Amino acid sequence: ADVKKIAVIAGDGIGPEVVAEAIKVMKKTEDVFGYRFEFEHGLFGGIAIDEKGTPLPEDTLAICKKSDAVLLGAVGGPKWDNNPKELRPETGLLGIRKALGLFSNIRPANVFDCLKEASTLKPEVLEGTDLIVVRELTGGIYFGEKFRREGANGEEAVDTCVYNVTEVERIVRQAFEIARTRRKKLASVDKANVLETSRLWRETVNRIAPDYPDVELEHVLVDNCAMQLLRRPSSFDVIVTENMFGDILSDEAAMLTGSIGMLSSASLGEGAFGLYEPVHGSAPDIAGQGIANPIATILSVALMYRLTFGYHDAAEAIERAVKEVLDAGHRTGDIAVDKSKAIGTTAMGELIVNAI
Amino acid sequence: ADVKKIAVIAGDGIGPEVVAEAIKVMKKTEDVFGYRFEFEHGLFGGIAIDEKGTPLPEDTLAICKKSDAVLLGAVGGPKWDNNPKELRPETGLLGIRKALGLFSNIRPANVFDCLKEASTLKPEVLEGTDLIVVRELTGGIYFGEKFRREGANGEEAVDTCVYNVTEVERIVRQAFEIARTRRKKLASVDKANVLETSRLWRETVNRIAPDYPDVELEHVLVDNCAMQLLRRPSSFDVIVTENMFGDILSDEAAMLTGSIGMLSSASLGEGAFGLYEPVHGSAPDIAGQGIANPIATILSVALMYRLTFGYHDAAEAIERAVKEVLDAGHRTGDIAVDKSKAIGTTAMGELIVNAI
Ligand SMILES: CC(C)[C@H](C(=O)O)[C@@H](O)C(=O)O
Ligand SMILES: CC(C)[C@H](C(=O)O)[C@@H](O)C(=O)O
Repeated sequence: ADVKKIAVIAGDGIGPEVVAEAIKVMKKTEDVFGYRFEFEHGLFGGIAIDEKGTPLPEDTLAICKKSDAVLLGAVGGPKWDNNPKELRPETGLLGIRKALGLFSNIRPANVFDCLKEASTLKPEVLEGTDLIVVRELTGGIYFGEKFRREGANGEEAVDTCVYNVTEVERIVRQAFEIARTRRKKLASVDKANVLETSRLWRETVNRIAPDYPDVELEHVLVDNCAMQLLRRPSSFDVIVTENMFGDILSDEAAMLTGSIGMLSSASLGEGAFGLYEPVHGSAPDIAGQGIANPIATILSVALMYRLTFGYHDAAEAIERAVKEVLDAGHRTGDIAVDKSKAIGTTAMGELIVNAI
Repeated sequence: ADVKKIAVIAGDGIGPEVVAEAIKVMKKTEDVFGYRFEFEHGLFGGIAIDEKGTPLPEDTLAICKKSDAVLLGAVGGPKWDNNPKELRPETGLLGIRKALGLFSNIRPANVFDCLKEASTLKPEVLEGTDLIVVRELTGGIYFGEKFRREGANGEEAVDTCVYNVTEVERIVRQAFEIARTRRKKLASVDKANVLETSRLWRETVNRIAPDYPDVELEHVLVDNCAMQLLRRPSSFDVIVTENMFGDILSDEAAMLTGSIGMLSSASLGEGAFGLYEPVHGSAPDIAGQGIANPIATILSVALMYRLTFGYHDAAEAIERAVKEVLDAGHRTGDIAVDKSKAIGTTAMGELIVNAI
């Protein structure tokens, strides 16, 4: 098989630990399925600030740009929280999204059988919950002009939220396409009763909708969506929304499944290229202890195989291996009921590798 | 006692039905406690659009301005949803907030014993949940400049989010004051890792915090807050945040209590004046059937008595009466387990009036 170039940016906190296990899994799929990967590592986030004086060094970006996919661990930590903006890990995250044109963030939120009890929701409410939040990732208030100025009532801060119809159309079309491969329901979330960007959003959705007559569309106001996710999570299939709303709702959706330590994500642009990362953060409190759960990162590899490479056999093998290991009762500390029986990061990684 | 002027704007849907019961309750407190109210009714929302061609007629605003407090039912409905902006009920809502200077929206989210089961959260997670969201109500992206323009990639929409330090300071101080009267914990919610307005917000909170050394302060990012509300709702006491985040989080918090049909709210400005309304909306689907639950509106009167008039005895009497009626097993359809035994709006109102 042709060699796929993987940019590996392990990042901060537990990032390096979980990424190491994901790479072992990828190597196992080389042996089993004959795929070939070439890994190149880059510094990113806090560690890049410490070693290179910037969260997103040029050479890291170059590595990503010549790769076929990026595997990201996690970035950030209290050490850099009070840095000026250009020296913060998040600035690197926003920078890499923009530089790589990753306009779409795919966040599946589904329930793992073995973790049903971990949710704070009642099991009967959660039953059947399996949704994807498609979040616009390179527009809106995240990237609009920001500044301070003196106003009549003292210092003022300004953020600008901008969307053009092209940006809205591409993300909405992608969400419709994804809905087509699933239960064929799309909820478009906005605040069209207040925001001009939301009205443009809704108009665009309505203009495009006739191209997807097989997909059932509903418009949901963002405040109502925050409620409906709690009330009827299983009724959602695909949710599409703008950057800021997507940030909030995708985290709410992830948390309600109780499976946040297990959830993967993909950030996509035009074409097959994508950046894959676990939803959980850098967890600085448990970093370096060898106890982090690598499953979300390993499942991010499965997502990469599906969405970027079309390696469905290997993706399935990974997902099946994870299920098998969990079904056999193996747990890392974060998902263990009996913490005394919890296994570590490498032990979990190894079990999954062996199950492939 | 001196006569207090109450502006009554019943609005749309179930608004008039629930407001009627709240007024009966107020009249009962005149008899029992000797307070005196004078009611003046104004058109507002959809009905005002139909009858006067504008959601917020001048004379309604005048009635509110010369009143000591406003009692609002609910506004909106599908009939007006596709109207142009100036002819939509929400526009009236934003207009009245701005015109009356109601910069603070107080949204208690607490659990009613009899409704514990109505929540989709597990009872043990919900146990002890009793929080207040203090939402900034006249600033931010709701009120900033909004427009369309032609851009390089087609039509563009723009919303502007602006906050000045004076606006932030007054709402944050109010939240600190409220926390002082409660469990002395304040969570300030922002997105300071991305937004300039959030950085101004956080700086301002940190500058003010030393004036409230008795209140424990935490900063929570908005995406994380959406998660923590699900994970540890009972650990929150007072949450303060800007307009858009407050819209989303206050609804999420309300829904997780399972008590949304019972929750009241206050919108306050400088001084004692306030606008009081139930959190639930106009519920057009059940309007005119006499089955709406009047309790949230009745409890909004109790909130008015406390916050605007300092009528604590009557407030307590109302709250006790509600509890008594619920404890006796009376339920409207929305909160009834056995729907066949549900009572109507006026029956519920009457029971509460009699219990005062
Ligand atoms: C760290 C932050 C800038 C980022 C975001 O808000 O996009 C994070 O919350 C996420 O969702 O990936
Ligand atoms: C109707 C709408 C404009 C309003 C808001 O977003 O403020 C409503 O959702 C609310 O919370 O009172």
